[in-house]
Amino acid sequence: MIYITRREHFNAAHRVFREDYTDEENLRVFGKCSNPNWHGHNYVLYVTVAGSVDAANGFVMDLKLLGEIINLHIIEKLDHKNINLEVDFMQGKLASAENIAIGIWNQLEPLIAQNNAKLHCVKLCETENNYVEYFGEHKNN
Amino acid sequence: MIYITRREHFNAAHRVFREDYTDEENLRVFGKCSNPNWHGHNYVLYVTVAGSVDAANGFVMDLKLLGEIINLHIIEKLDHKNINLEVDFMQGKLASAENIAIGIWNQLEPLIAQNNAKLHCVKLCETENNYVEYFGEHKNN
Amino acid sequence: MIYITRREHFNAAHRVFREDYTDEENLRVFGKCSNPNWHGHNYVLYVTVAGSVDAANGFVMDLKLLGEIINLHIIEKLDHKNINLEVDFMQGKLASAENIAIGIWNQLEPLIAQNNAKLHCVKLCETENNYVEYFGEHKNN
Amino acid sequence: MIYITRREHFNAAHRVFREDYTDEENLRVFGKCSNPNWHGHNYVLYVTVAGSVDAANGFVMDLKLLGEIINLHIIEKLDHKNINLEVDFMQGKLASAENIAIGIWNQLEPLIAQNNAKLHCVKLCETENNYVEYFGEHKNN
Amino acid sequence: MIYITRREHFNAAHRVFREDYTDEENLRVFGKCSNPNWHGHNYVLYVTVAGSVDAANGFVMDLKLLGEIINLHIIEKLDHKNINLEVDFMQGKLASAENIAIGIWNQLEPLIAQNNAKLHCVKLCETENNYVEYFGEHKNN
Amino acid sequence: MIYITRREHFNAAHRVFREDYTDEENLRVFGKCSNPNWHGHNYVLYVTVAGSVDAANGFVMDLKLLGEIINLHIIEKLDHKNINLEVDFMQGKLASAENIAIGIWNQLEPLIAQNNAKLHCVKLCETENNYVEYFGEHKNN
Repeated sequence: MIYITRREHFNAAHRVFREDYTDEENLRVFGKCSNPNWHGHNYVLYVTVAGSVDAANGFVMDLKLLGEIINLHIIEKLDHKNINLEVDFMQGKLASAENIAIGIWNQLEPLIAQNNAKLHCVKLCETENNYVEYFGEHKNN
Repeated sequence: MIYITRREHFNAAHRVFREDYTDEENLRVFGKCSNPNWHGHNYVLYVTVAGSVDAANGFVMDLKLLGEIINLHIIEKLDHKNINLEVDFMQGKLASAENIAIGIWNQLEPLIAQNNAKLHCVKLCETENNYVEYFGEHKNN
Repeated sequence: MIYITRREHFNAAHRVFREDYTDEENLRVFGKCSNPNWHGHNYVLYVTVAGSVDAANGFVMDLKLLGEIINLHIIEKLDHKNINLEVDFMQGKLASAENIAIGIWNQLEPLIAQNNAKLHCVKLCETENNYVEYFGEHKNN
Repeated sequence: MIYITRREHFNAAHRVFREDYTDEENLRVFGKCSNPNWHGHNYVLYVTVAGSVDAANGFVMDLKLLGEIINLHIIEKLDHKNINLEVDFMQGKLASAENIAIGIWNQLEPLIAQNNAKLHCVKLCETENNYVEYFGEHKNN
Repeated sequence: MIYITRREHFNAAHRVFREDYTDEENLRVFGKCSNPNWHGHNYVLYVTVAGSVDAANGFVMDLKLLGEIINLHIIEKLDHKNINLEVDFMQGKLASAENIAIGIWNQLEPLIAQNNAKLHCVKLCETENNYVEYFGEHKNN
Repeated sequence: MIYITRREHFNAAHRVFREDYTDEENLRVFGKCSNPNWHGHNYVLYVTVAGSVDAANGFVMDLKLLGEIINLHIIEKLDHKNINLEVDFMQGKLASAENIAIGIWNQLEPLIAQNNAKLHCVKLCETENNYVEYFGEHKNN
C-alpha cells in the first residue's frame, strides 16, 4: 500500500446557518459564519488515494486522471459558486467544512473505486488555521 | 527610512459585475467572478509603513498599535462580510482586488499619518496566484 | 468519525539541557540547543480533535470554543515566555519538542473530553524542518 | 510512542518512461513527464520516525543524527543528480515519485533501526500539488 | 499606478556550464549546478504588471488574459522541458536563473505593452532560498 | 541591474526593553516582548544583492559565495544565541527587528561591496505576520 495525494483549490461563498433559526439565533450559535449576506473562502482540497504500485507504469493511479476526476466532479461544481445555493450534493445540508468534506468523499469514492484504487482521505482546509479530515464511514484511523 | 509590514487576514464574499450589464454580459467580461450568487476568498492583507527608527523604543511604529488600527478600521469591516453589500468604503465601486486595495489605502493613510509614520504600500492577495499592490496616488515606485 | 484541526502559534525561549551536566557535557549531548543564554522559536501548534458530526450544527466541535480552550490553557502560558522557567506543566522536564508536545496533550485532553470530543493529535513544529506528533499513551497510530 | 519528522530537500532531474516503449507510446502513457530531454523538480522529503522518549535527553532520536543519516544516504545521492542515470538504488526502476519514495524507505529503514527507532513514513513531494506517502510493506495505516 | 501580480509554475531541467570549459572547470566554477546529466527545479514565476485602474471593469489588466499570455508564451515553452536544449529564447545563453528571468522579460514585455499595460517585474524563484528579480534595462528600482 | 535574493534562517532569543525602565514601564511600552526571562523567534532573513549579469558565468554574484558570507558573518553570530547578550553588533542597542535588520545591513554591506556587487535590501521576518525591510541610509526606495 502506498498513498498519493493531489491538491486542488476552489473559491466559494457559504453561510453556516439553520433555516429554522432566526438571524439572532444563528449569530449566537454560528457566530460571524452565519452572516445572511454570505462570506467566502479559498478552500484547499487534498485528496489521498491508496493502492499498490502498478509495475507497468510505476503509479498507484495516474495523477493526471485523478486530477481530471476531481476537477470534473468537485471543482467544477464548487469553484466560484455559492455552496448553499448552487452545489447539488450540499442541498439540504449545513454548509460546515465537515459536511462539505463528507459530501466530497461521497462524490469521489465510487469514481476512484472504478479505477482500481481506494479513496483514503479527503482533507479540506477552510483557512490556514482550520481544516477537516474525513477517512470514510468505516475508518477511525 | 525603514519599512515595517504587518500581515492580516479576512474572509469575505464578493462579486465583480456591473449593474448596467445583464448577467450574460457580466459573465463575458468578468468570467466566473460575476456569479450572481457570490463567491469568496481568504484575503491576505499586507500593510507596509515607512519611517525612521525612534531611538527611544527601537520602533518605526508600534506594531501592536498598527495591528489595532488595521483591525478596527479594515478587518472589522471586511471579515465575514459581503464586500459589495456591507462595506461602507466600497459602496458604488466595482469589487475588484484593485479597488479594494485602493479603498483600504484611503482608509488607512490618514490614520497612519496621525502616528508620525507614512503608509507605503497596501498589498492584497486574493488567492495564492493573484495579488495587487498600491503605493498611493503620487507614487510610481 | 471525522477530524478537525486548529492551528495556533506561540513564540518562546527555551534551552535543552540537564542540570546534572556541565555546560560542556550539555553542549556535547544537546548541541547549540543547550546555549545557557537561551534561544527561541516561533512554535506552530496543530490540535486535532476527533468526533462525529452533530446534526444540529454540522460541527464535530465548535472551532471557536476549541480555539478559546487552546488559547486559555496553552498559548497564554507559553507565548512570549521562557519554557524552562515560566511554564507550570514543564517544570522539572527537559524542554525538548517531544516533552512540550506531551505536556500540551496532558493539558488539553481532559478539557476536550468535557466537550464530548476526543483529542486525537498534538503536532508541534519547532522549525520548518522539525516537528513532533503525539497521539496519546494508548495510541500507536 | 511519539513521532518526529525531519524535512530535507533535493533538486534533481528525472524522466518517467519505459525503455521498451517508443517516445510516442511513452508520451501517451506518461504525458509530459516522459520528455526524452529530462525535466526536474525541487523534491521535498519528510522522514518520520517513531519511538518512545528517552528520559535521559527528552528525544525519540537525536534530530541532528537523523539529519546526518538522511543527508549522507539520500540527499548526497539525489541532490543535483539525474535520478534515472546516477542514483544507485533507482537503477532498473521507473522513476515515478512512488518508486523514489519506496527506494528511500529501503535505504533508510535499516539505518534508523540501528539507532533504536523505527522508520514510520517517507513522504515525498514532487510539486506543491502532488505527493506520495509510504509506510512500509507491512503497514496499511 | 497600481501593480498586479500573477504567479505561475513550471518544472524543468537545466545545467549551468560553459561549452568551452572541461567538466572539471565547470564543476569548479558552477559547483553541483554543472552536473553533465542535468538536474531540475520547480520554478515559481511571478509576473508583475503596472497600470491604472480601468473604470469600466475595475482592472489594471484582465488577470485571465495575463495568465493566458504567460501560459502560451512562457509556461508552454518551459514546463517539463530541458531549458538548455529545448527553449528557443535560451539558445546560446548560460541557463542561470538571472538569464532565464531576463529571457522571460524579453518575451513578455512587448506582449503586455500591446494590452495597454506595462511589465514591471519578472521574479523567478529557483528554490525556496534563491530568487531573482528583473525590472528591465532602464530600471534600477 | 538585476536583483538576486538569498534566504537564510536563525533561531534566537531576545528581549525588547530599556535598562533605565522598571519592568512595569517596559511592560507598558514594549508589551509581552519585554519579558525579563526572554522569548524567541525563528527569524527568516532575505538578503538582496543588485548588480549586472557577468557574461562569463551568468551570475550577478555567486550565490554559494553570498550564502557563505551570510553564514559566516550573520548566522554564526545569531543562530541559537541570545541577541541581547551574545551578539557583538547588537551591544548597546534595543533588540527590535528594526535594529537587528540595520545591524545586519552594516555587517554585510562592506563584504558584498568587496565582491563587486551592491547590497540592496535586508528583509527580516520575526513572525509570519511581522517583517522589516531596510535599504540603507541613502535609499528611500
